[in-house]
Amino acid sequence: MGGDSKPDRIGVGLIGFGTIGTGVVKVLRENASVIEQRLGCELRMVRIADLDLDTDRGVDLSGIRFDADASALIADPDVQIVIELIGGYDVPRKFILEALESGKHVVTANKALLALHGREIFGAASAAGCDIAFEAAVGGGIPILRSLREGLAANQIESVLGILNGTTNYMLSEMESTGEDFDVVLKRAQELGYAEADPTFDVEGVDAAHKLALLTTMAFGAELAFEEIPTEGIGGLLPTDFELAAEFGYRIKLLAIAKCHRAADGSERIEAQVRPTLLPASSLLAKVDGVMNAVEIRANAVGPTFYYGAGAGEMPTASAVVADLMEIARGIRRGGSGRVAPLSYLPEHIVAKPMVPDEEISGRAFVRITAQDHPGVLGPIAAAFGEEGVGLDSIIARDQAGATAGLISVIVWTRVATEGALRRALDRIASLPETSGLPRRIHIEEVV
Amino acid sequence: MGGDSKPDRIGVGLIGFGTIGTGVVKVLRENASVIEQRLGCELRMVRIADLDLDTDRGVDLSGIRFDADASALIADPDVQIVIELIGGYDVPRKFILEALESGKHVVTANKALLALHGREIFGAASAAGCDIAFEAAVGGGIPILRSLREGLAANQIESVLGILNGTTNYMLSEMESTGEDFDVVLKRAQELGYAEADPTFDVEGVDAAHKLALLTTMAFGAELAFEEIPTEGIGGLLPTDFELAAEFGYRIKLLAIAKCHRAADGSERIEAQVRPTLLPASSLLAKVDGVMNAVEIRANAVGPTFYYGAGAGEMPTASAVVADLMEIARGIRRGGSGRVAPLSYLPEHIVAKPMVPDEEISGRAFVRITAQDHPGVLGPIAAAFGEEGVGLDSIIARDQAGATAGLISVIVWTRVATEGALRRALDRIASLPETSGLPRRIHIEEVV
Repeated sequence: MGGDSKPDRIGVGLIGFGTIGTGVVKVLRENASVIEQRLGCELRMVRIADLDLDTDRGVDLSGIRFDADASALIADPDVQIVIELIGGYDVPRKFILEALESGKHVVTANKALLALHGREIFGAASAAGCDIAFEAAVGGGIPILRSLREGLAANQIESVLGILNGTTNYMLSEMESTGEDFDVVLKRAQELGYAEADPTFDVEGVDAAHKLALLTTMAFGAELAFEEIPTEGIGGLLPTDFELAAEFGYRIKLLAIAKCHRAADGSERIEAQVRPTLLPASSLLAKVDGVMNAVEIRANAVGPTFYYGAGAGEMPTASAVVADLMEIARGIRRGGSGRVAPLSYLPEHIVAKPMVPDEEISGRAFVRITAQDHPGVLGPIAAAFGEEGVGLDSIIARDQAGATAGLISVIVWTRVATEGALRRALDRIASLPETSGLPRRIHIEEVV
Repeated sequence: MGGDSKPDRIGVGLIGFGTIGTGVVKVLRENASVIEQRLGCELRMVRIADLDLDTDRGVDLSGIRFDADASALIADPDVQIVIELIGGYDVPRKFILEALESGKHVVTANKALLALHGREIFGAASAAGCDIAFEAAVGGGIPILRSLREGLAANQIESVLGILNGTTNYMLSEMESTGEDFDVVLKRAQELGYAEADPTFDVEGVDAAHKLALLTTMAFGAELAFEEIPTEGIGGLLPTDFELAAEFGYRIKLLAIAKCHRAADGSERIEAQVRPTLLPASSLLAKVDGVMNAVEIRANAVGPTFYYGAGAGEMPTASAVVADLMEIARGIRRGGSGRVAPLSYLPEHIVAKPMVPDEEISGRAFVRITAQDHPGVLGPIAAAFGEEGVGLDSIIARDQAGATAGLISVIVWTRVATEGALRRALDRIASLPETSGLPRRIHIEEVV
């Protein structure tokens, strides 16, 4: 591999010098030796662009040109790979397209942008003959996209289930362990820097849905359809939900779920959803605490596999960004790009696939109903489920700690039923004179 | 990507048509469509060689030439990638070298061969400009080698801890859940096909050590040193060990352990060992039951990551073999090989690194001692640990169920100590008049 004409240095430019960008500079410096021993050339940060030129990021910038001119960075002939770490939509979209049009390869961690504008961006990369890599966009430092795209490439993927948002996973872990309310825990997460000042994207499940959209396309070759993913956040969960879950051997996680339903005639429908989910406490996914992420993938040859690691943070995310730089650098050194289709399937095989309507999604469920404390109350509730064809595993009356006198909780564990039948049953129950308020239901998922 | 000159079919030849080989034929047939949608060309099995031409493998062989002539398969111009799935040493070594010399790329699952003859084989591949891929050699269908080689390529790897042998993991799970002895469980594992008629390689930890040797080289750039890995099998474990472990919140797994000790001057020493290990029952690794495998990797940027899946079996192993075929095929279509160094580090950066001597390896330990049942027995035992500088967390006397009258078990949980100090303490204890037989010690490892 010695005296050939391969470049012995690949120049990298970074647009957006925040937490992750700082991590990238650190990883390239601290691990330069091992990176070169694996790659066979130096990966050098030559230029950084950010509007904030004043904040001290605490890293050595010697040898790196640092200014506010992202377009000049893209045009710089010393920059062969452009890293976009700005966040948002319009500005990063503009720079990524500009970089691709300039023949520069791109690395990004921007799941929101790719979930919404992926078609345009992946199309531009393909047209330009450039690579676009985004391992850091899903699961932070876990090499989950690589595993799906290459490690499991010989499989028909059956399902992808993931804890993809560290903020909400931290909050759920805290609510469970402390018994505190959502608002208290959210405030703490914000103080610790785990949640944004505006936490909407995280707590309402939007961030997880962005990531799930990418995983769904990569797993099943289905066109990106972020807007069609039913998404439910964690705001409605109460301390009692965690207590009851624990009592019955479950934990609650915000789960991103994608499954491919293949009919006998070969036609496929995609089930995708993000919602608080009860997982058996003994499962691997249930053991994922705090800001960690994990993904379970089932596939027809390999069976179930499971991947775990830090889903966010400066250094774990930088680990994924630099792995992408190395992947692209290997291509540059060999004179090419496009070795692997970024979305796993070649573009011509990514097609619109129908979604399973929300009401047809089936599974077991946990339901908590507030009802009057009198002897005849369970009958009409059980009957309402039966009338909609929802079988029950158990129905249990339970005193409510500190609740209004005269009210109890009725806890129901259903058998497998469709979402539609379940909703109709819950509508019936809500209108019963014996019940008070709306029933709370949580989806149950079987995992390894 | 349409009308260029890339081949639209890559021919594959298989030497060794046993269980895994049959799985490879099945995966290539059943998943042909999805493989082509990702790869952009057909991966076709064109030829199989095996001495057994009579056994019905239950797969459709139409279009595949099947005979006993492996050398003719290697020489066949329609065969571009040779899969070696024979097992053993001399015969597969000969065929792999023959294939590489003929300019054919090679996929193998043979960890024993690579652990012992890797230097020769990887050297031959490099000299021939051919790829050699072996994802199936470690962790079966888990894409663990890819993750280590590419997903975590930007990291200094700190440790790799794995449950790498499904046979022993099944046996340990069974011993724990049934309370049965090693011999009983081994017999069942053999009846179920999980253990070979000669189970030596599995139960004595040799298979796990073969895999660990490969992982150690890939993680740390240390020359393959299988012979230097201290290896202890599961034969000495008794039902009481599992009971005591459970009582204190631990489970026992046969763990393959590799760590890199980096000194302040940058020098590195490698710690590698395979031994029965106590893991906290709440850890992810402790939850790996039956024939499943899992690996925990810690690295300086990403932190801890964890990978789980089927470590053996027809279809999971075939999943990894066909992933390797696809990887090589992507290279062939782009006119090259050698994109990634097979052992993660470029050959010139794989160097001999000193091993930490067994007696210097440090950790906590569980010790079970049989002693006489009289009031003064704990004193001399505790003193023996103290005299060798081994601190103790607890020392507990316990009646032995069904044991000889007048004997008790003394259970000791040590603090962190070197293996050397611990052994000297155990030697002292073995020679005490108050004890009977040799103390039993089990290593404790901290994991996520």
